[in-house]
Amino acid sequence: MHLAAFAAAGPVSGHHGGWRHPAADLNLLSARYYANLGRLLESGKFDMLFLPDILAIPQRFENSMDSQLRYGALGALRLDPMIVLSALAATTTHLGLASTISTSYFEPYAVARALATLDHLSDGRAAWNIVTSFQQAEAANFGLTDQLSRDERYERAEEFVEVTSKLWDSWKDDAIVADRATPLFANPDSVSAINHHGKWFNVQGPLNVSRPPQGRPVFIQAGASGRGRDFAAKWADVVFVTHSSLESAQGFYKEMKERAAKFGRDPASLKILPGIVPIVGETATIAEETNRLLSELTLSRAGLSTLSYHLDIDLSEFPLDDILPELDVPGVQGHYKEVSELTRKNGISLAELGHRYGVGPLRDFVGTAESVVDTMEKWYNSEACDGFMIQASYLPGGMENFIRLAVPQLQDRGLFRREYAGSTLRDHLGLSRPNA
Amino acid sequence: MHLAAFAAAGPVSGHHGGWRHPAADLNLLSARYYANLGRLLESGKFDMLFLPDILAIPQRFENSMDSQLRYGALGALRLDPMIVLSALAATTTHLGLASTISTSYFEPYAVARALATLDHLSDGRAAWNIVTSFQQAEAANFGLTDQLSRDERYERAEEFVEVTSKLWDSWKDDAIVADRATPLFANPDSVSAINHHGKWFNVQGPLNVSRPPQGRPVFIQAGASGRGRDFAAKWADVVFVTHSSLESAQGFYKEMKERAAKFGRDPASLKILPGIVPIVGETATIAEETNRLLSELTLSRAGLSTLSYHLDIDLSEFPLDDILPELDVPGVQGHYKEVSELTRKNGISLAELGHRYGVGPLRDFVGTAESVVDTMEKWYNSEACDGFMIQASYLPGGMENFIRLAVPQLQDRGLFRREYAGSTLRDHLGLSRPNA
Repeated sequence: MHLAAFAAAGPVSGHHGGWRHPAADLNLLSARYYANLGRLLESGKFDMLFLPDILAIPQRFENSMDSQLRYGALGALRLDPMIVLSALAATTTHLGLASTISTSYFEPYAVARALATLDHLSDGRAAWNIVTSFQQAEAANFGLTDQLSRDERYERAEEFVEVTSKLWDSWKDDAIVADRATPLFANPDSVSAINHHGKWFNVQGPLNVSRPPQGRPVFIQAGASGRGRDFAAKWADVVFVTHSSLESAQGFYKEMKERAAKFGRDPASLKILPGIVPIVGETATIAEETNRLLSELTLSRAGLSTLSYHLDIDLSEFPLDDILPELDVPGVQGHYKEVSELTRKNGISLAELGHRYGVGPLRDFVGTAESVVDTMEKWYNSEACDGFMIQASYLPGGMENFIRLAVPQLQDRGLFRREYAGSTLRDHLGLSRPNA
Repeated sequence: MHLAAFAAAGPVSGHHGGWRHPAADLNLLSARYYANLGRLLESGKFDMLFLPDILAIPQRFENSMDSQLRYGALGALRLDPMIVLSALAATTTHLGLASTISTSYFEPYAVARALATLDHLSDGRAAWNIVTSFQQAEAANFGLTDQLSRDERYERAEEFVEVTSKLWDSWKDDAIVADRATPLFANPDSVSAINHHGKWFNVQGPLNVSRPPQGRPVFIQAGASGRGRDFAAKWADVVFVTHSSLESAQGFYKEMKERAAKFGRDPASLKILPGIVPIVGETATIAEETNRLLSELTLSRAGLSTLSYHLDIDLSEFPLDDILPELDVPGVQGHYKEVSELTRKNGISLAELGHRYGVGPLRDFVGTAESVVDTMEKWYNSEACDGFMIQASYLPGGMENFIRLAVPQLQDRGLFRREYAGSTLRDHLGLSRPNA
């Protein structure tokens, strides 16, 4: 089983009530905060730390960023994830370091270079969560009056990944000779231009950084639209997804493995990690009471504000007491699928949906370590996942409880490593290193 | 006196023979290499570490990157400086962290965010060396068939810095309240869009990172053209420059302080740091012998390859045995000024010029600590500089010798700090914090 930690460099990682928890560490701007988290995750032998990203403060709800800032919602504050992870490269030794980077507003040369540098400095622990940006507020921060259509975004993403992959392969593995006597620093025959000419990008290359230790960083993808699933099945090493039920997870798992096979890949090389917000207590009552407390600290308006951003729809235009009607949403298909299932199944009002969305993707993982691990094992053994993206309800306490109480149970049942076997993220995930 | 260390995340920091020195550490891809350098510089109480940058492997000499790679010249390999400095933020506590970032190929929102994050994580130690890119090879890595003219580059740079400054000021200093009870994470009245609409950029803002500890990072500039000098006089906190003589340094110093005054600034708030390559030995003979050894390890072709890149002219088209004629160079004016002075004064051939360029900007700083510090003191007291950008001939040894032998002399003479007085880079440089 693989375990990744989903933690934003901002107030919300899995639960909108989290930052209001009395024991939450709110030093979100401090290097110590992230260094502590890195040490904690390595003590729990996690595969990786995953940082999501946003390139603007969302302002979809009520056409204003007010609710995001006031309630400390998902996009109220967000440090640059590559900077945070680079600092973490220096204070950790085994933890994979996964950064979200959009293909919509950056240049492949710059992204390939930053990730190659991180992979070198971390001795092979870099991962890239490949996303396309859809928010109007993000476009407006990058000089565009409108975003690309979903098809254009994915077309650009596809070419973006092709170009970065060519750049990482523009140095052969043995190009640096560093022979002082000859002298021969790097063998010119082992470094080549890529001369890429495409619809979206023209890049001459080569990269001015040598081939990274992992060949290329581990690729992560979270797209749940048809186009997103194809992209993931073709390119991704890891798929991150949220579900509202075991059945939904099983369906997605089966479908994605089949898609990967269609692209000629070994389905086992595509790792599927659903996000869960476990609340683990020493007793069931402690866990339930913590859950109740966090739930009380979650405002419906905070969840609606973030859901408006995710769906790219102003939910303040719908009546709070009614069920959200079926919609064609321009935003994240995966999140829409999750909430529309919730709505249909339970017939809950929009106000209640906002609260539910604010407390995180799934409520099946609250209890003692034994019961939470029972559910995780059930998911894992019933072909719903290859592991989990753990979203702590609050930090660091929610993650500490999971690691101190649940991880030993996972280890005792032989489901999870007791020690790191290798040193690179590819080693942890059991993935082979791509040839140049 | 202020001391900065100029060190590339690549083979050449000040001397093209440096990486061939028997004691040079060639683990340029390892986090340990940079962490060791950071610790060393903090032991020497340096103001900051400065990382230069290039966005391509130069291919100006003989229209090929062969010489750069083979001879380990200036642009043979270059890690992303922001990633390197972010890792260093975690392993240092006082050292200023200065990254070169071009205004030509990036977006102000992304640059403002990365630097704000680094300033937060380092508790106020970030600096930005603002450059414009002129290399054809760089343009070709970013989808452009040709570069901008110098005037257009500086016009874009000017607007770029304006936009980033607005973004850093888009959060008031006290915007984050983090009040769990109310709840009030950030005060919406203290965070504002910037709505910038200019010739080069349209950026809505606000930034999604709160105002950095230093208000904005320290600005560094190295332009020596008329346009570059105006830009520096208006914006820069620190000017980095190379000279071939004391007289040249004095003239530049006087002129820049006057320019700063013309922009209504206190001339003392503009710090001018010429680059020097000190070779300090326990005895004069050790220093001279080290200098001779490093000189022998420097190939003329390596220096010509880098000079071709700096001037943006293929010097292989000129006869090696003749003096370089007067030229109108499209590249770096400061470097052209330096070499044309050398050529005119000494009547040296192009082959010899390549060798001289390869060994670094100035040869007046070779000797015992006493004699090197004598020269530094003379420069400092004769209004040639406010300190120095120390370019070690090889790393870490060349810097270790400077710090163990010369820094105590500087301290004994009362020219340089024995301990850091403050914690931010602005503190070290004696600069005030800008108001929002």
